[in-house]
Amino acid sequence: MPVNPAPRAYQIVLQAIEEDLRKEKLSVGDQLPGERALAEQHGISRASVRDAIRILDVMGIIKTSTGSGPNSGAVIISNPSAGISQALRLHLAAKGINVREIVESRILLETWAAQMTPRDPIHAQQVIDRTAVLIMRMDDAQLSREAFHRIDAEFHVLLASMAGNAVVESMMESLRNSISDYVSESVPSDEAWQPVVRILRRQHKAIHHAFATNQRERAAQLLEEHINWFYSQTR
Amino acid sequence: MPVNPAPRAYQIVLQAIEEDLRKEKLSVGDQLPGERALAEQHGISRASVRDAIRILDVMGIIKTSTGSGPNSGAVIISNPSAGISQALRLHLAAKGINVREIVESRILLETWAAQMTPRDPIHAQQVIDRTAVLIMRMDDAQLSREAFHRIDAEFHVLLASMAGNAVVESMMESLRNSISDYVSESVPSDEAWQPVVRILRRQHKAIHHAFATNQRERAAQLLEEHINWFYSQTR
Repeated sequence: MPVNPAPRAYQIVLQAIEEDLRKEKLSVGDQLPGERALAEQHGISRASVRDAIRILDVMGIIKTSTGSGPNSGAVIISNPSAGISQALRLHLAAKGINVREIVESRILLETWAAQMTPRDPIHAQQVIDRTAVLIMRMDDAQLSREAFHRIDAEFHVLLASMAGNAVVESMMESLRNSISDYVSESVPSDEAWQPVVRILRRQHKAIHHAFATNQRERAAQLLEEHINWFYSQTR
Repeated sequence: MPVNPAPRAYQIVLQAIEEDLRKEKLSVGDQLPGERALAEQHGISRASVRDAIRILDVMGIIKTSTGSGPNSGAVIISNPSAGISQALRLHLAAKGINVREIVESRILLETWAAQMTPRDPIHAQQVIDRTAVLIMRMDDAQLSREAFHRIDAEFHVLLASMAGNAVVESMMESLRNSISDYVSESVPSDEAWQPVVRILRRQHKAIHHAFATNQRERAAQLLEEHINWFYSQTR
């Protein structure tokens, strides 16, 4: 384990907020104390408090609104995939992570989620209904490739959400977001895209049918084939 | 999909750096351009550039050194688990994530990694040797609980690294880091800890033996039992 240097001023605020969240002194929906109050409380500059607030914002822990008045400021939210996704995207760009690793991880997470008994049958049924709508939208021949990829990502993330595990779901969503540019650029031309999209539509329908008829092993197997096939088409 | 508001000034810098990394205009080991240069390049304030630099630092994309002179400033690194781990910790604190989800995710990632054929046999052998040393250190009766948990985490992360997938490894390490406080507080007293630690030592040795003798299915099964057993001991 590396020895950590002395914490920077903004890390003092991050640690204190983490502690307050753990002790439930702060909860989702609460207003974060103001800049001045946090600076005085921790004996650090307002600039360091602002650093901490930016970081919490990027990590999906708070939502900041601009403007002034009593309702301005930061509110605690918890959007795990936003923060994780941003970090994964940057590391993928820096080649700390390669595409084979992303493919393996997607297959791991998606096939696991497919095989789990849904924790909430009502949510599971909503996912089946919602993904049926997405499949119809992906059938639209006028749909741009960019829009197709966005709906495709939503389709996969929704199916994974059935398992009811926010960690797995965030990792999934983060992976999808982190590779969206790669996916968009992966098929070189619109001509090359046409035969690919026809097969993707067919695969999505077969996957959806397996989920809808509760053939979970089959769904996992189709997902694995679908993900491997798609990456095999991209250089 | 929510409509995104106009990007904040620091996001312009984040996006530009992500783009430069993808196009390999910037690579690991390179110096990040200085604050003033980035501010001029993007037409934003130096304060916004500093925000972006802090965020890149927390996300493990750059390493900043304090001081001035030609060697001061930020260097590109890529430490995916640092950034992801920080985000997961905060969301766990904010209850966006619960312990059941962490346990399920750990089992998923660790048993998957155990069952993969190691990508690099030399690295795999180094892991076997290194984890043998960790097991001996965990046998020390004088070891503090805190130190035990730290070595325990290192043991699990090293074993998972054999699979040679940086995404899975980062997720694993992040999960371990994000729950370290929970783990430390999970067993209420030193008296209660003694019988627990004896069983943990035994389980670690059995897991290590399965890896060392290349019984990978068995290793996966033992890991699953070990993780489930430990959480069953904690309230």
